[in-house]
Amino acid sequence: MEGRPTQNESDAAGSNYMHGLAIDAVIFGFHDNQLKVLLMQYKKSDIFALPGGFIHKEENLDDAAHRVVSERTGLKDIYLEQFYVFGDATRSDPSPMRTIMLANGIAPGNHHWLLQRFISVGYYALVDFTKVTPMPDRIFDGCNWYALADIPPLMQDHAQIIKKALASLRANLDNKLVAFNLMPEEFTMNDLQILYETILDKKLLRPAFQRKILSLGILERIAKKWTGGAHKAPYLYRFK
Amino acid sequence: MEGRPTQNESDAAGSNYMHGLAIDAVIFGFHDNQLKVLLMQYKKSDIFALPGGFIHKEENLDDAAHRVVSERTGLKDIYLEQFYVFGDATRSDPSPMRTIMLANGIAPGNHHWLLQRFISVGYYALVDFTKVTPMPDRIFDGCNWYALADIPPLMQDHAQIIKKALASLRANLDNKLVAFNLMPEEFTMNDLQILYETILDKKLLRPAFQRKILSLGILERIAKKWTGGAHKAPYLYRFK
Repeated sequence: MEGRPTQNESDAAGSNYMHGLAIDAVIFGFHDNQLKVLLMQYKKSDIFALPGGFIHKEENLDDAAHRVVSERTGLKDIYLEQFYVFGDATRSDPSPMRTIMLANGIAPGNHHWLLQRFISVGYYALVDFTKVTPMPDRIFDGCNWYALADIPPLMQDHAQIIKKALASLRANLDNKLVAFNLMPEEFTMNDLQILYETILDKKLLRPAFQRKILSLGILERIAKKWTGGAHKAPYLYRFK
Repeated sequence: MEGRPTQNESDAAGSNYMHGLAIDAVIFGFHDNQLKVLLMQYKKSDIFALPGGFIHKEENLDDAAHRVVSERTGLKDIYLEQFYVFGDATRSDPSPMRTIMLANGIAPGNHHWLLQRFISVGYYALVDFTKVTPMPDRIFDGCNWYALADIPPLMQDHAQIIKKALASLRANLDNKLVAFNLMPEEFTMNDLQILYETILDKKLLRPAFQRKILSLGILERIAKKWTGGAHKAPYLYRFK
């Protein structure tokens, strides 16, 4: 059980983990032309949080991030990227964590490692919604997708973490398209424009969008045209 | 004395700092059309390192980074940016740190906090070379600028940290120009092109560069023209 916090009594002291340092993962999914985020709900509480976890004492930071995300999504080999470290001294309000622990039958002392200050490394991913099997575990009732407009109040600074992840994604979208491997093998210019418009949350002018995307030099036009209808068939593209 | 490591005997246990977490700063300076990096040399050793330090238990991460950089450069209000977290489990080879401590009269036990694993948050800055007064302190003999081509072997993964900082700077140069406040108040298109060419380490074609920079919409052309010579005077620009 690697989630946050641990219910494993033998690790109540957190002796297997680096203290003071956590990982939070913003997992964006694209579905029905909406951008959604995967959130956990703690058991016996109304406390919602990003999927997160800790780093084993001899584990690479990036490996820990992959482990945490894999445990919550069932996805292996996901492309994850660090985007920011959240290190304000006041970000770790211990009260929701205390509430969660009490609800799970743990009565922590004030010096419990989970109640101390944590600096958190933020990772984000953009995944194919349909390939994810959200997985709660012993301390979570829920692990579900929420559209950006419908996100419930989140613990600590998790709302700010999502905001920053979204800004990073938007700022680097051109460079992330291939890495995130989000489009199907073949797609139309219109498919791609819809993805951009959804993530950027604004309408784009088609000629300017097409010119810009083609100038990136990442697309290859497929010779064979789509022949599914009577209308002028759109070209299909794939990433080089 | 906030540098890394501390020589202050009263803080040998590191009780004022978060353990396991450090800051490393890559401070780029632009001078004589060269890109240089500020490096520390530990006293009584040939060990070179990036300026770095630790986070006080109740200090914001970003404030700690500013403090560390200010102590080494004398610069206040510098624009610093996080670019990556270095978290490989094997990055913290304790042997150079042990050598440094022994050279400074400290005989650390194996469990000394400075010899444990550290995850390091990388920050970078691009500063006006001429405004910096490099400042060593009690445990450093030197704090000097090194051109990228002349960097000595560095401790731990510091060479990799510089490489990653440079990649981040290159990838985001268009967005960083104004933030880093590197150019003088007024400058020519040629001044700006030289800065780009130096940082990117390649020649750029002038018409394409000019078109691209102007399309960013961050420059304002100053009405008054330069009148210093008989040749056709170049336009002067400033950031909007």
